[in-house]
Amino acid sequence: MKEKEPTLRDIRKAADRIKEFIHRTPTLKSQTLNTLSGAHLFFKCENFQKGGAFKIRGATNAVLSLTDEEAQHGVATHSSGNHAAALAQAARWRNIPAYVVMPENAPAAKRNAVAGYGAQIFSCAPTLPAREAGLREVVANTGAATVHPYNDYRVIAGQGTAALELLEDAPPLDMILAPIGGGGLLSGTAITTAALSPHTKVIGAEPALADDAYRSLRAGRRIEAGPTSTIADGLRTSLGDKTFPIIQRLVSEIVTVAEDEIIHAMRLVWERMKIIIEPSSAVPVAALLSGRLPVAGKAVGVILSGGNVDLDQLPFTRH
Amino acid sequence: MKEKEPTLRDIRKAADRIKEFIHRTPTLKSQTLNTLSGAHLFFKCENFQKGGAFKIRGATNAVLSLTDEEAQHGVATHSSGNHAAALAQAARWRNIPAYVVMPENAPAAKRNAVAGYGAQIFSCAPTLPAREAGLREVVANTGAATVHPYNDYRVIAGQGTAALELLEDAPPLDMILAPIGGGGLLSGTAITTAALSPHTKVIGAEPALADDAYRSLRAGRRIEAGPTSTIADGLRTSLGDKTFPIIQRLVSEIVTVAEDEIIHAMRLVWERMKIIIEPSSAVPVAALLSGRLPVAGKAVGVILSGGNVDLDQLPFTRH
Repeated sequence: MKEKEPTLRDIRKAADRIKEFIHRTPTLKSQTLNTLSGAHLFFKCENFQKGGAFKIRGATNAVLSLTDEEAQHGVATHSSGNHAAALAQAARWRNIPAYVVMPENAPAAKRNAVAGYGAQIFSCAPTLPAREAGLREVVANTGAATVHPYNDYRVIAGQGTAALELLEDAPPLDMILAPIGGGGLLSGTAITTAALSPHTKVIGAEPALADDAYRSLRAGRRIEAGPTSTIADGLRTSLGDKTFPIIQRLVSEIVTVAEDEIIHAMRLVWERMKIIIEPSSAVPVAALLSGRLPVAGKAVGVILSGGNVDLDQLPFTRH
Repeated sequence: MKEKEPTLRDIRKAADRIKEFIHRTPTLKSQTLNTLSGAHLFFKCENFQKGGAFKIRGATNAVLSLTDEEAQHGVATHSSGNHAAALAQAARWRNIPAYVVMPENAPAAKRNAVAGYGAQIFSCAPTLPAREAGLREVVANTGAATVHPYNDYRVIAGQGTAALELLEDAPPLDMILAPIGGGGLLSGTAITTAALSPHTKVIGAEPALADDAYRSLRAGRRIEAGPTSTIADGLRTSLGDKTFPIIQRLVSEIVTVAEDEIIHAMRLVWERMKIIIEPSSAVPVAALLSGRLPVAGKAVGVILSGGNVDLDQLPFTRH
């Protein structure tokens, strides 16, 4: 039987399933960012989420959705970090093993977090084919159930619960911006938003150095991201065959931003909002500040996807 | 007529006077910090305060307390940064000029903030005598009213409003920790707490490199801090003749912490709570983690005094 795309109903079920495990994160405002962008901004702070990123939503929904038989040999995934830590945490809650294939250039902080939750880590080259091959091998050896970081309907449904909360906590929004890497967060956000607030445009923000979603939407077919060194390490992945059609159908636009715009936006949020966000979270902020979107006077939701940074490797340079 | 120490009544009046200008900051919890300290911690987040620090409370109360005649030539102060920016902001609200004497080693971010509010800045050597001499000269030249950063009862009353909010928002507390530099925040906190929650101990946390409060309390007389390079730049000042007697009477204990403890605590808060605090705010956190206080199982309020850091000058070293 062909799996079916999640609906609002599935996302509401996911919210019920995960709510005792995750934080309901706050939605913050910032006068300074409002002034600089010209919009009324509502920041959904998934940097304060358990594990420091939204990924715990999808991973927990997926792990708790498994039958006992499916779960008996544990779970496995490939991830640059936040999903890996989330899956390891969710597996620990269910008391099953977790196996994680990580690209060798993943930040040390993320690698340590995964190890800290007791997952077994396998390193691989930082390319999608290498990650997928590594995962196939691990699954063949362990019999674990694969929980893909984004190309999985249970994960997409879990990620869609962040927008559910944002729409409850903010006034009616003209627009919601979320970063796009593999598309799990953006497709979940788009399903929730299309169902609950159809007049709200959903916009993806992507590093220009990893603009596979931008190019894929223009081409009308999935184009894979090559190896990339974008500082937004959570967004180095390519769209999947499950996320792409949802995004194609429900997302209005993808805006790309340069590396210096990402770093500037990240610094601005740190300095003015006094909260730690990771580069991936700064991508939609950079899009808002770029002047490339008609946001003047609009109410705009922004999903700050995570706050896991390596404090020893900050991109701020001495003046 | 001799001025009288502020009472709870003065602090409540200050709260009314400043409330439309300042933020009511949140009180946050952290599972990780609870686990590491053994206590139940309630963090009063003045890093989210307008201007990034609690100082706006005292400065605004002082500026709004001036008669029109007192205010006509503006206000002047000396400050390593946060009070200067706060006074400049409060003066702008009242539409009067502000003059600020700043030590030449004040962080660039703080200096820029002061200039950004339109205050006129005068640099001086980083010692209390140099700061006081600079201020006398400025006052002689301008006729401005002095608003001392801490040794001023209007300022002390304003700073005491943070504890007022903390005591409202947290469950009954066994202890409240605040950093101590000149003693404005700690003495205001102590007055509020003694009146509203007399069983709650008020404890000051101080860098060992600037332990004048610790030594003054032991000696029973004010001992001035010499020049110090503690990373907690907000705490380099000495107690004043108005703050010392309040602290002597109402504060249970001063705990000192080493520089590496401050940096470790700051990093921990950044990494685990995902909020930006400045080194001065990390001092009470370091005290909690030091094992030098009997906090196991206790409900402890912690005033995180500010979040103004120079991101180009972070103390974290590459591993």
